[in-house]
Amino acid sequence: MNDEYQDLRRADVATVRGAIRRGDYDGHTAGLAPGRLQCNLVILPERYAIDFMRFCQRNPKPCPLVGVSETGDAMMHTLGADIDIRTDVPGYNVYRDGALAEQPADIARHWRDDLIAFALGCSFTFERALLQDGIPLRHIERNLTVPMYRTNLPAAPAGPFGGGLVVSMRAIAMDEVAKAGEISARYPLAHGAPVHAGRPEAIGIQDIDRPDWGDASEILAGETPVFWACGVTPQNAVIAAGLPFRITHTPGKMLITDVDEFAEVPVIQAEASRPAALAVPA
Amino acid sequence: MNDEYQDLRRADVATVRGAIRRGDYDGHTAGLAPGRLQCNLVILPERYAIDFMRFCQRNPKPCPLVGVSETGDAMMHTLGADIDIRTDVPGYNVYRDGALAEQPADIARHWRDDLIAFALGCSFTFERALLQDGIPLRHIERNLTVPMYRTNLPAAPAGPFGGGLVVSMRAIAMDEVAKAGEISARYPLAHGAPVHAGRPEAIGIQDIDRPDWGDASEILAGETPVFWACGVTPQNAVIAAGLPFRITHTPGKMLITDVDEFAEVPVIQAEASRPAALAVPA
Repeated sequence: MNDEYQDLRRADVATVRGAIRRGDYDGHTAGLAPGRLQCNLVILPERYAIDFMRFCQRNPKPCPLVGVSETGDAMMHTLGADIDIRTDVPGYNVYRDGALAEQPADIARHWRDDLIAFALGCSFTFERALLQDGIPLRHIERNLTVPMYRTNLPAAPAGPFGGGLVVSMRAIAMDEVAKAGEISARYPLAHGAPVHAGRPEAIGIQDIDRPDWGDASEILAGETPVFWACGVTPQNAVIAAGLPFRITHTPGKMLITDVDEFAEVPVIQAEASRPAALAVPA
Repeated sequence: MNDEYQDLRRADVATVRGAIRRGDYDGHTAGLAPGRLQCNLVILPERYAIDFMRFCQRNPKPCPLVGVSETGDAMMHTLGADIDIRTDVPGYNVYRDGALAEQPADIARHWRDDLIAFALGCSFTFERALLQDGIPLRHIERNLTVPMYRTNLPAAPAGPFGGGLVVSMRAIAMDEVAKAGEISARYPLAHGAPVHAGRPEAIGIQDIDRPDWGDASEILAGETPVFWACGVTPQNAVIAAGLPFRITHTPGKMLITDVDEFAEVPVIQAEASRPAALAVPA
């Protein structure tokens, strides 16, 4: 939470991405460019792309695909007017033969003609929707990372990609569980409706106080643990696939797009081709 | 509307697909296996698959991808326990070099190791949801084909796939337009919310009484034309791409899956891996 972050919190999306591109900001992106869709990032060689897209299609709740680059083209044309995936994320993890090889601030020298960048929706969108509808989220109030757990629910496999579903947990007041489910169901590109509520052991979670990732979170009297599909699922699937080369964002350092965070379709259209008439009169 | 069709209307999905597989039924599928997701079909060589999946990802309203086969594997594992895409659709269109070459009852002898079958969501799902909520649909009442129109709204291109958005039109009572929009928005795998309501000319439709496909439909006093993205869009995109070989379903003769028509995720899971606990308690 340095001064730069505080300044950027008041800046528009172009200013924020500009600071990231120039290397002036390399921190986390939560709270930056409010209202804009933020994404997880997976970059793979084209030879794995069909299977990875099949994996995302078959597991849309943990793996909502919101953008796919052209092969070898680093500009994410559908997500913004000027997004260069080589420089516009605050931090990258570069893996070779399964091992974290480097955490560079940009990947210009790692980019190749056979790479495809995949942007995946994240939980920020439905969390903002829950907050706007008056459902509090403890990990945000306490500035902690949401607790995440491995489950015994399998993902539908595709080629080398598979493994189990990872979930995130939020404690919700019992009389608000149905409402939280309905609200999040409106955002299929941000993990959609919960996959379970109530009994952690029913989905293979042995100890709710010991998450596999993130910070443990209290469940108070009158609350129920509610579990949503989590973007760690595709990251684990990519790890388990044992690919010789991949790049991801560094956790917490997301791709910030020009797309409205609540957009039904995560595609920026040229102004000329986006008539106001597209909106349905209320 | 022969006797066979009337008998099949009372049959379960396995019986219906069995009759189709054996060649005992080759008619349209509307009204068969009620409650099961029906799909449009596009079969392409693998070399076009990445671009076609990018096209669907970028145009999810006209092209909701609900199933993708393994390359060369004719079984649609994620859409049912026993769906053979070579035999389980009542009729196929086989195109060579852009021209309709054949309309066989099965494609066993056309199947190749490099083919991928893509199942795409269709309007049946949201139409059933509208009807269940008391919003009448004239083309269904009158047993006509919904009117469809080319528009001036571009699809987001991907590789050889592009072209314009095609829409279907339903006349909705003005005080029900918002409700119809909200209901259909719940089904992103069935074209989602309307793309326009009100002025056909705003989206490039010159004469509402002369649809490009389907039957013209009245718009009565107090009604508004409401336009949804239409599955003809990807069919046109595939035509325009000029591929040397492709197979589609014959219009009206859809793939009937085991998936619940209102499922949030269009994937059948093995019973053992689908705990009742997946449901969120209401």
